[in-house]
Amino acid sequence: MIVAQAQPASGDSAASLPVTFEDVRMAHAAIRDSIINTPCLKSRTLSDIFGAEIWLKFENLQFTASFKERGALNRLLHLSEAQRKAGVIAMSAGNHAQGVAYHASRLGIPATIVMPQGTPTVKVQQTASHGARVILHGEKLEEATALAQQLAKDEGLTFVHPFDDALVMAGQGTIALEMLETAPDLDCLIVPIGGGGLISGVATAARAIKPDMQIIGVQAELYPSMAAKVKGFEAICDGDSLAEGIAVKYPGQLTYQVVKALVNDIVLVSEAELERAVSLLLTIEKTVAEGAGAAGLAALVAQAAPYRGKKIGLIISGGNIDTRLLANVLLRELAREGRLARLRIRLKDRPGELFHVTQIFHEHQVNIVEVSHQRVFTKLPAKGTYADIEVETRDRDHLDQLITTLRSRGYDVRVIEAV
Amino acid sequence: MIVAQAQPASGDSAASLPVTFEDVRMAHAAIRDSIINTPCLKSRTLSDIFGAEIWLKFENLQFTASFKERGALNRLLHLSEAQRKAGVIAMSAGNHAQGVAYHASRLGIPATIVMPQGTPTVKVQQTASHGARVILHGEKLEEATALAQQLAKDEGLTFVHPFDDALVMAGQGTIALEMLETAPDLDCLIVPIGGGGLISGVATAARAIKPDMQIIGVQAELYPSMAAKVKGFEAICDGDSLAEGIAVKYPGQLTYQVVKALVNDIVLVSEAELERAVSLLLTIEKTVAEGAGAAGLAALVAQAAPYRGKKIGLIISGGNIDTRLLANVLLRELAREGRLARLRIRLKDRPGELFHVTQIFHEHQVNIVEVSHQRVFTKLPAKGTYADIEVETRDRDHLDQLITTLRSRGYDVRVIEAV
Repeated sequence: MIVAQAQPASGDSAASLPVTFEDVRMAHAAIRDSIINTPCLKSRTLSDIFGAEIWLKFENLQFTASFKERGALNRLLHLSEAQRKAGVIAMSAGNHAQGVAYHASRLGIPATIVMPQGTPTVKVQQTASHGARVILHGEKLEEATALAQQLAKDEGLTFVHPFDDALVMAGQGTIALEMLETAPDLDCLIVPIGGGGLISGVATAARAIKPDMQIIGVQAELYPSMAAKVKGFEAICDGDSLAEGIAVKYPGQLTYQVVKALVNDIVLVSEAELERAVSLLLTIEKTVAEGAGAAGLAALVAQAAPYRGKKIGLIISGGNIDTRLLANVLLRELAREGRLARLRIRLKDRPGELFHVTQIFHEHQVNIVEVSHQRVFTKLPAKGTYADIEVETRDRDHLDQLITTLRSRGYDVRVIEAV
Repeated sequence: MIVAQAQPASGDSAASLPVTFEDVRMAHAAIRDSIINTPCLKSRTLSDIFGAEIWLKFENLQFTASFKERGALNRLLHLSEAQRKAGVIAMSAGNHAQGVAYHASRLGIPATIVMPQGTPTVKVQQTASHGARVILHGEKLEEATALAQQLAKDEGLTFVHPFDDALVMAGQGTIALEMLETAPDLDCLIVPIGGGGLISGVATAARAIKPDMQIIGVQAELYPSMAAKVKGFEAICDGDSLAEGIAVKYPGQLTYQVVKALVNDIVLVSEAELERAVSLLLTIEKTVAEGAGAAGLAALVAQAAPYRGKKIGLIISGGNIDTRLLANVLLRELAREGRLARLRIRLKDRPGELFHVTQIFHEHQVNIVEVSHQRVFTKLPAKGTYADIEVETRDRDHLDQLITTLRSRGYDVRVIEAV
């Protein structure tokens, strides 16, 4: 347990914020026996790559594979006896749903979770398997939220907000206590922002313990809602982000106050940077992060220079990524590295032509994954044709050697950029 | 640290085996400060699935992502001053190469690693980055081994065997000490077998600490070499196993003695069971295991009944799996679960036909990944055609509903089994 410092983070302003260090410490005392104190480990290889000392907090190893349990549980523990009996309701297609359902069930509190229609059955089943009543409603999150709030009113249920609630924020802040207990020398935390619950709690605790701690928020470029609110620009929030866990259009009111007061900067990361970060965590750290969970590392991928030489703490906030999506991220990364490529080769339309070409692939020990011919839809004379050949190589050098040989034997080759 | 028991595991026989509990304890004292005491955690979800209490030892979280460091380091620490100066040599395309190169470099011992030609450049680079001299030679492991032994002779280098060496076996056995320190109640360990180094060390230590400990070995069905040697059948070892880390044709002589004396049984697992196990560890435990590293869990996938109610320890021995291979394993698993499927639909060759079909897909909110037509190579009358449509569904129910609707509207549909 962290020993409290005598003075608050920044005098008066901290006292007037919706969540205090004392709230976080009380939350930790309340929830610590029912959540996992997840590993917080230094990554030697990532430290070498980025030129900073990088520590990872593996919140993807919580039972429901995300930090959301902390805030949800802290909220549930503050219900009155009557509220417990009546039950709780939440709206979420993701990690918050699991967190509420799991801990409500453990505590014997009836839970209702409203999920948008089209939520993958596996998520519906997981949530239901914790004993929650699951209601599928609405095409969009807004419709599901409206129903949840209506039901809360009609049935006397307590609505558990995913982020804009002081008790939820305090619960998420317990992560910072654990990180600074393991790695007290950290001088910067890079924290994903969706609604802002995680960073509000973390910033509150970390600044109280180390007043000069640098707190950097990260959002997806496609959903820069909190950054826009803080910096005063117009946010366009749209698109299919890999980091759907932080793809939030409307950040919280309470969280906004904390972020504005305590967060040093908010950086935006591209989808390619998020993909690269997910892939690095998988290949180097052997751990599965969802897009939002890799956002902290994506900030380093985007720009490492400002962090050089510092001791950086990253929170791998969750690991719930769709398997097909993960497989695609990995394959796209291989394409970027030149290990998977699609070559378009112009062939004369005569017997033996493909044989001559594939012989060159064989000479270079390049694996052919797929061959397709384009005869009709080309601008070539009728006797010409293109073959698209998808290949697997050892690395970019190996691919380049193949292409050089093909060209030296007179073939017109180009690489089709898939990504 | 485990406190030694007064009596050896099985009296006389243990004393005559090539490696003793004392060797393992000395190895632990020697290497413990230079390797990671990797987490050993109970998996609640896997325990629920298989009806046993399942503990996982995450050796995939060693610095070079495999347990091989332990044995290699213990061997290196026993070199004479002259041997250290002259240097060491090893043959490996995989985890043993990394383990030897990394710790030799740390200790200032010159290391040469012979790898077969065609070893992926990333592995060559990783090994070289530890400061080792890397020699690429031979198409097969046998040729590379021959060169390594020749060089050892010519240049006065010490050959570090990947498994058939008492010091290497003792080093691997340190895993059992750590597991039983964390989870002293374990009553069964399921351990992958390639050459037999890991299970020899583990069995030696575990039996000494708990004489009634059950020790089960696992091999890939494609490479049942140790099982064949112990049980006296003819082994055919061939094929491309997902578990290339245990695809060993000739088990050790020393390891064979230990396995014969201490291992209760050796089970064989299929490629599909290995794939399923890799996928379970990734989706449930959020951890990346290579095929060999998932072999213990594959044994439970193959047959859970014998282990029901027991406290089982599994060693995730390594996490070095090729990214493309991992992506393919995940996609094949989705196909098995019905979330990816290829449907062959018979169409009349007339305008609007594909429109009518895709409308049904749209009604069911099924995502179409790819459409291809077969006109020429069918047995249908010239006016008929097949469309192969690759789809992505929420789950098998969702797929079944789509197919039912297609058939009720008169379409001839079948699922093309890809795996």
